[in-house]
Amino acid sequence: MSLVVQKYGGSSVADAAAIRRVAARVVDTVRAGNDVVVTVSAMGDTTDELIDLANEVTTAPDPREMDILLTAGERISMALLAMAINSAGIPAQAFTGPQAGVITTEHHGRARIIDVAPGRLQRALSQGRVAIVAGFQGLNQETQDVTTLGRGGSDTTAVALAAALGADVCEIYTDVDGVFTADPRIVPAARKLTRITYEEMLDLAASGAKVLMPRCVEYARRFNVPVHVRSSFSGLEGTWVTDGTEEGDDMEDPIIAGVAHDRSEAKITVTGVPDVPGSAARLFEAVARADVNIDMIVQNVSATNTGVTDISFTLPQASIPAAIAAIEGDHEGIGYAALATDDTIGKISLVGAGMRSNSGVSAKFFAALRDAGVNIEMITTSDIRISVVTRDADLEKGVKAVHTAFDLDSTEGEAVVYGGTGR
Amino acid sequence: MSLVVQKYGGSSVADAAAIRRVAARVVDTVRAGNDVVVTVSAMGDTTDELIDLANEVTTAPDPREMDILLTAGERISMALLAMAINSAGIPAQAFTGPQAGVITTEHHGRARIIDVAPGRLQRALSQGRVAIVAGFQGLNQETQDVTTLGRGGSDTTAVALAAALGADVCEIYTDVDGVFTADPRIVPAARKLTRITYEEMLDLAASGAKVLMPRCVEYARRFNVPVHVRSSFSGLEGTWVTDGTEEGDDMEDPIIAGVAHDRSEAKITVTGVPDVPGSAARLFEAVARADVNIDMIVQNVSATNTGVTDISFTLPQASIPAAIAAIEGDHEGIGYAALATDDTIGKISLVGAGMRSNSGVSAKFFAALRDAGVNIEMITTSDIRISVVTRDADLEKGVKAVHTAFDLDSTEGEAVVYGGTGR
Repeated sequence: MSLVVQKYGGSSVADAAAIRRVAARVVDTVRAGNDVVVTVSAMGDTTDELIDLANEVTTAPDPREMDILLTAGERISMALLAMAINSAGIPAQAFTGPQAGVITTEHHGRARIIDVAPGRLQRALSQGRVAIVAGFQGLNQETQDVTTLGRGGSDTTAVALAAALGADVCEIYTDVDGVFTADPRIVPAARKLTRITYEEMLDLAASGAKVLMPRCVEYARRFNVPVHVRSSFSGLEGTWVTDGTEEGDDMEDPIIAGVAHDRSEAKITVTGVPDVPGSAARLFEAVARADVNIDMIVQNVSATNTGVTDISFTLPQASIPAAIAAIEGDHEGIGYAALATDDTIGKISLVGAGMRSNSGVSAKFFAALRDAGVNIEMITTSDIRISVVTRDADLEKGVKAVHTAFDLDSTEGEAVVYGGTGR
Repeated sequence: MSLVVQKYGGSSVADAAAIRRVAARVVDTVRAGNDVVVTVSAMGDTTDELIDLANEVTTAPDPREMDILLTAGERISMALLAMAINSAGIPAQAFTGPQAGVITTEHHGRARIIDVAPGRLQRALSQGRVAIVAGFQGLNQETQDVTTLGRGGSDTTAVALAAALGADVCEIYTDVDGVFTADPRIVPAARKLTRITYEEMLDLAASGAKVLMPRCVEYARRFNVPVHVRSSFSGLEGTWVTDGTEEGDDMEDPIIAGVAHDRSEAKITVTGVPDVPGSAARLFEAVARADVNIDMIVQNVSATNTGVTDISFTLPQASIPAAIAAIEGDHEGIGYAALATDDTIGKISLVGAGMRSNSGVSAKFFAALRDAGVNIEMITTSDIRISVVTRDADLEKGVKAVHTAFDLDSTEGEAVVYGGTGR
């Protein structure tokens, strides 16, 4: 008998009919001889509707009360799913994050899971029950208040429960068939990956692939939880995310896992920064104090001996106001001349563990972009990833060109199954 | 400084604008120098919508999961109200029933409050905060599961909190201006009562007056909590429900508090029951096992010496199937001839502590009904109440006639303020 943790997103439980379909799948899994723990998100647009309601009441909702409000969403979906499974003849009970023993930090709206004390879930399982757990939430033990984990929190809940319970697999049900070599909306010939390593998935997720959030993959890697990303609308095998050591087949590992893209970033360029030690440090200290996550950094060498230089960096578009305020707040200390913001950039990333042992990957990547007429504005590379910043308008043709250059295009033509929005 | 517990029903927090209005009233109460604890119901039709959703998922929702589902409603309203009060500059925190220390029995959907451990609320108050508490819910300590209290549970929550905290008053805000001498929809000349005793209120509530539920009044009486029933739509004084000992004015107490009516009952008549000791006991034992609450009972004396008798009793219409099944299940043991059901009855009740010391009240009551042409089918009396069963079609004219006969009609003509549906 295996222990399976399943996670269903908001679109999989959007209405009563969808909840009954999920219940049927859970019941099938139980009837196949498994113990099952299920994590659910809120139904469809519930979370957005609750946020709208809060904004109607006040322009500045308290984070603590916002978490109380938003957790009502999972409360509804988990209760309905437990009822549906029960009425199909399999005993099920729903548990909130706090009841399930999900202990988090105190940061309302973006709490991180510290620990999982799964005593109640284990008791339910030992009584032959399916345990339904509200995703996206936990307990701040100090204040005994409910917290939410922020975007992608339900996936992380599922992986954390799987780790704490020693589950054999964590199945993430979504509206796509798995992890693809590129976003099929941009590259119709993208292929579904059968398997991918935690490392590769982490780099793809960090580079803009929406199917899993980096936090969730990081958690799975740390506790070595096998994750199976699959569609809740089909019975197909999806993509296995593992440490890559279990493979018994003799097929050679592909060099490249996939091409990711990201349109959510912006670029800030700080010009006329004194070209002396400590200038960059002062700049990024100011930004860090504003709690802004920076992605790529490029410092231009001053062409002439002017004594000043330009520094560009990328960051989430939503963080622009905070970053600008932080830099302007230390204008004198940093001593720059001017600030420029550009939110029409795109990022293309090539990810694959096989890069390590294959020279020439970068050259091929840049050549593909050059041949497609895509200009490169910034470059960063890591062990298993190359990322470039381009014009947003060039993003799609760049992704397509790279996908083709690395022989990732499906040989099955248009036959790739693609189930949804890719988010 | 006083401690005030306020309760707002679903219509008072139906949307964002209504929630802001309630917040303004709470803020006014704080600014007037009071400590405030607020109990809220779910917004508008939320509870009914959640019940509909459950019925879409399954025809037999589990009571435990149903309580998890329904408590999402108060979770939403309490969080929004706390935000609204906070944004008006008064610190407020929302608490679920379990967080507020409301301990109940284990009966999901109809739990009763056993105890209130208000430590967290007292801490919030001592920190200068308004505490918002979800009404209608509590914790089954044994299973650590949330429970709901059933209809009228939010009022009971408010009174229980007021008792546990030693509040100076429990204000029940509703969509009517207070307790009236009759339902103003039937008797436009009905008057708002300035005060009423727990006893009278209990009898009015048990006789069909919807403004407060009997459980809530019973709780208030037991702990001697002064209850002020008033409108959330006006600033007017409402009706004080107290033990009646505090009155300093020299106005003579009125004999009659009001006329209540009830259309929610039905009558079952069991004919041909053996006229021997134990027959009635056997009949009502069967009904009691089915968990059916019986109101009035009449046994007709057999006119001729047939050795059999007829027994009629009234019960909630919703309990008819259960009662019929229970009686038919013991057909042989009870030994009756036939069963008849009548759900077109109405009940008219006259309530007043002054009845005790005033003879002639019954005679005047029956005479008023006779003069109005209303036929009486069953009669019960208690210390401070007379109730009769009539045809449903005669109910309104009966209520009006009795109201007039006891000089309850307002001398202000049509000037009575009446704010809502009376429920």
